[in-house]
Amino acid sequence: MDRNSGWKTECPIVQTLERVGERWNILLLLELFRGAQRFDELQSSLAIAPNILSSRLTRLVDAGFVEKHLYQEHPPRHSYHLTQRGEEFIPVLFGLLNFGNKHFAAEGPKVVVVNRDTAEIAEPVLVDRKTGDAITSDRFTIASTALASRQTRAKYPLQARKAARAGRTRVARKTPAR
Amino acid sequence: MDRNSGWKTECPIVQTLERVGERWNILLLLELFRGAQRFDELQSSLAIAPNILSSRLTRLVDAGFVEKHLYQEHPPRHSYHLTQRGEEFIPVLFGLLNFGNKHFAAEGPKVVVVNRDTAEIAEPVLVDRKTGDAITSDRFTIASTALASRQTRAKYPLQARKAARAGRTRVARKTPAR
Repeated sequence: MDRNSGWKTECPIVQTLERVGERWNILLLLELFRGAQRFDELQSSLAIAPNILSSRLTRLVDAGFVEKHLYQEHPPRHSYHLTQRGEEFIPVLFGLLNFGNKHFAAEGPKVVVVNRDTAEIAEPVLVDRKTGDAITSDRFTIASTALASRQTRAKYPLQARKAARAGRTRVARKTPAR
Repeated sequence: MDRNSGWKTECPIVQTLERVGERWNILLLLELFRGAQRFDELQSSLAIAPNILSSRLTRLVDAGFVEKHLYQEHPPRHSYHLTQRGEEFIPVLFGLLNFGNKHFAAEGPKVVVVNRDTAEIAEPVLVDRKTGDAITSDRFTIASTALASRQTRAKYPLQARKAARAGRTRVARKTPAR
């Protein structure tokens, strides 16, 4: 990697995409979320070559999104399940789903996010947990913290400096949820 | 595409990933969001080959995420800007950023989402606009609508049916925000 692009390794978006940013990985996570568990089922549902499915599953297991369980010993057969990390990634996919429906579903949405209890269609919106404000690109931006390298700080304004200007004391770590 | 995988074309997540799911595209959108506008600036900041940068920019322009403006006529020079669609995609990236910070920033976050006015670090969380409920994978799921093909409906439960069971009348389209 070029010395101008070291900041990429500090970007949590890049970190996440490196693990799951590939289309098959996303589709696999969706299948597991939907309840598919067995290799054969995943293979036929995704119409994916066995060797590719196998390598993608291994990658997702290594990245901590998926767990492998032995459900039969002779011959050995495994089932695959989302870990807590995998489950926590699902809302990110709901955000993508909602964006896709808004921008690319010309005839109206074909799949939607629904509340399991009420079956009501949800309208996923990203808000700031502390203030409840909708997180839009005009009101929120990306800043670096004191932990960031010089290069990352040159790219994104240092959050602490802005906070100091606003008369607040801040630490670089995320504040706990209220 | 295999006849078993036609449902993929109906998935808004796949639709979105096909347009921007590639790492360079995401990094480009982030650079434009950060304020980089010119080809040279994007090239040096991303350490990307000019031909790749050019093809990625064209792709993002074609997909409606980016606009190209002529800022100099002799010789012709263009600047690049996020469209409204591009701006609306940024919160999806904030969601990824937040996930990455939670799962892969072992030493603490190096970049964060901040409120532009207060410089406070935001805690992005996906909620249902109508109810305010946090959207988690245990309480929300994916369902198909009456517009979906048989294949998509076989994969995801039909939302209308569940809603009918719950004693509600629902239409397949998204209900407007309150």
